[in-house]
Amino acid sequence: MKYFKNEQLRRDFIKKMAMLGAGLVFYKPADILANEKGYIMNKTIKTKAYAAFDESGVIKPWEFERRAVGNNDILIEIKAASICHSDIHQEKGHWRKQQYPQVPGHEIAGVVIQVGKNVINFKVGDRAGVGCMVDGCTTCENEEQYQSDTLFTYGFPDKREPSGITQGGYSTHIVVRDHFAVHLPSNISFQEAAPLLCAGITTYSPIMKANINKGDKVAVAGIGGLGHMAVKLAVSKGAEVYAFTTSADKIKDIKSFGAKEVIVVDSNEKFEEYLGQMDYMISTIPYQFDVAAYASVVKPYGFFTQVGMPENFQITLNNLGLSASRVNFNASLIGGMKETQELVNYCAENKILPEIQIIQAHEITQAWKDVENKKARYRYVIDTATI
Amino acid sequence: MKYFKNEQLRRDFIKKMAMLGAGLVFYKPADILANEKGYIMNKTIKTKAYAAFDESGVIKPWEFERRAVGNNDILIEIKAASICHSDIHQEKGHWRKQQYPQVPGHEIAGVVIQVGKNVINFKVGDRAGVGCMVDGCTTCENEEQYQSDTLFTYGFPDKREPSGITQGGYSTHIVVRDHFAVHLPSNISFQEAAPLLCAGITTYSPIMKANINKGDKVAVAGIGGLGHMAVKLAVSKGAEVYAFTTSADKIKDIKSFGAKEVIVVDSNEKFEEYLGQMDYMISTIPYQFDVAAYASVVKPYGFFTQVGMPENFQITLNNLGLSASRVNFNASLIGGMKETQELVNYCAENKILPEIQIIQAHEITQAWKDVENKKARYRYVIDTATI
Repeated sequence: MKYFKNEQLRRDFIKKMAMLGAGLVFYKPADILANEKGYIMNKTIKTKAYAAFDESGVIKPWEFERRAVGNNDILIEIKAASICHSDIHQEKGHWRKQQYPQVPGHEIAGVVIQVGKNVINFKVGDRAGVGCMVDGCTTCENEEQYQSDTLFTYGFPDKREPSGITQGGYSTHIVVRDHFAVHLPSNISFQEAAPLLCAGITTYSPIMKANINKGDKVAVAGIGGLGHMAVKLAVSKGAEVYAFTTSADKIKDIKSFGAKEVIVVDSNEKFEEYLGQMDYMISTIPYQFDVAAYASVVKPYGFFTQVGMPENFQITLNNLGLSASRVNFNASLIGGMKETQELVNYCAENKILPEIQIIQAHEITQAWKDVENKKARYRYVIDTATI
Repeated sequence: MKYFKNEQLRRDFIKKMAMLGAGLVFYKPADILANEKGYIMNKTIKTKAYAAFDESGVIKPWEFERRAVGNNDILIEIKAASICHSDIHQEKGHWRKQQYPQVPGHEIAGVVIQVGKNVINFKVGDRAGVGCMVDGCTTCENEEQYQSDTLFTYGFPDKREPSGITQGGYSTHIVVRDHFAVHLPSNISFQEAAPLLCAGITTYSPIMKANINKGDKVAVAGIGGLGHMAVKLAVSKGAEVYAFTTSADKIKDIKSFGAKEVIVVDSNEKFEEYLGQMDYMISTIPYQFDVAAYASVVKPYGFFTQVGMPENFQITLNNLGLSASRVNFNASLIGGMKETQELVNYCAENKILPEIQIIQAHEITQAWKDVENKKARYRYVIDTATI
């Protein structure tokens, strides 16, 4: 019964998430999730960043102060931060109303330059990564993402922050609770490590839970930042991977990632050929799509995991179609901190690396447009030296 | 791999259902599912009925001809037909545009009065039941509901029918392929048997697949015609049943069905107390509802089955909420013919009977309003002698 170790936290989380999804509440800065654990308030951290100032999708330079480094925190000088479709959804207000200025970015890699007095897992000079969470439960055994006191990396109210909310990785520095950072092995670059912190773990976690055996047929839907990692990770586990994409010009790339077949979805007819054949399917599609049609390629009573988060977090599915496939639909959020470290180590050791395009900070606004227009190949990484 | 015995049929079914669900096609009478298997066309059957003439929900008397009894068919004189929420959805055009006049009703009990020359399973005088299907695959091993040539009981194009479509059970007679009728044991009345043919089997099929053990906690959401049977069936399997209803005045009834607890859902707070506790949940709610909130009462990695079919067959769920519960969402349609016979025998033997209110045919329109207003307690059964 390990899932109930922190029952109240989980209960509160579900309640909060249900309200968010239903659009019933909007955050008021600093009245939810405020965290006053008696940190020593030393000097705040001057930080340069690129931020959203409204829902327009335009990202501009901004300078702000981060909270001081507490006893259990580390300060990271950010070397690389990559662009996730979630950054766009959140800053454009697709999930809920936001407070601005807000610095997006939850795929972060850098070097530790200061540690709090209680920190024993990190020392100055360590290479470290930060993903979607920066504080919260430290005893949840890989279940941090589902606890009510989890502080997500940007846009979440935090009384300790001078701006009133957490601010993300499109910036020069970040302060994070030690438990929510991972060590980056020396044989992986900052640029290639950054995308692992969300795109990597979000696909790795459900793929590992799916218990894939060598030769199993695994379908991946949506081959962008998350999807291309899902393909590589499933291939690395010995699966025969079938990639479903709407972009015909990705075929060659996707085959080079190890996929056995690439299916260009230009009509629902495309699913018929693969009907009921897949052992498992993961979808990274971050907008509404025909879930039942995609799920129909999975074997009856098999599993389909949705990790992409559409506008308002809402998925509409055809219940009649789903009944015909008899597939189990589930959703997964990110992954726990323990498995994030495991994923980073696994990718570094096995050279399972994201395809990246390095951009300068002033190119972020255009890069967001390219992500929305499915032009990213496959992860834009911001060189934070250009901020 | 028993699910692929009739692969092409299943494939076509999924394709068709996906199109239906997406609202992409409307039936044109007699151009889909037409069935010309060389039946001997004897005399057509004069039938009195109550039919829908438009989407208004008003049901009026109608006389029409049914197709003659083919070599593999039986003719049933209908004694009782009950009202399912699906009748209302379909005739009001909530699922797709319909052809009228159309006789609803797919919970049918009566006596065999004629058999085709190839029929060996039924003889004149047998008590028989008909559910949601009247023709189709006869070798599908309990998978008839998912085959493309399945002829559903009303509103489906059938060239053999003088009216061009199948016509349902609010009538005096019905012609059905022998495979799609079940025997009614002698110790169950026609009135109590009728609701088993849809409400019974639709809940029995997934409950049996859920493999419930004595003492398991089973939640049932939506305590109407289907839900009250789900409660009784789960109780009969030894489960502790938790019934979630929006009708406070059903509490006493539901406890008398054997439920351990009745939870009146007047806010999402109600789910918190049961968070992550249920081994399984079945929802019979036939309209949009907050799936993730209901599913949150199921144990992580447990299963939630949706059998109610909302307008346009669409279910919208909060993907973030579902990820927090980590519950597997699936859907089930009806049940196979083999398990329908099993269910009828099981209910008769164990006295698991629906709560019924017998009405006259002229009361159908009002009864439909009462079903929509959640006033049914719990299944209206039409005395077909009054048609």
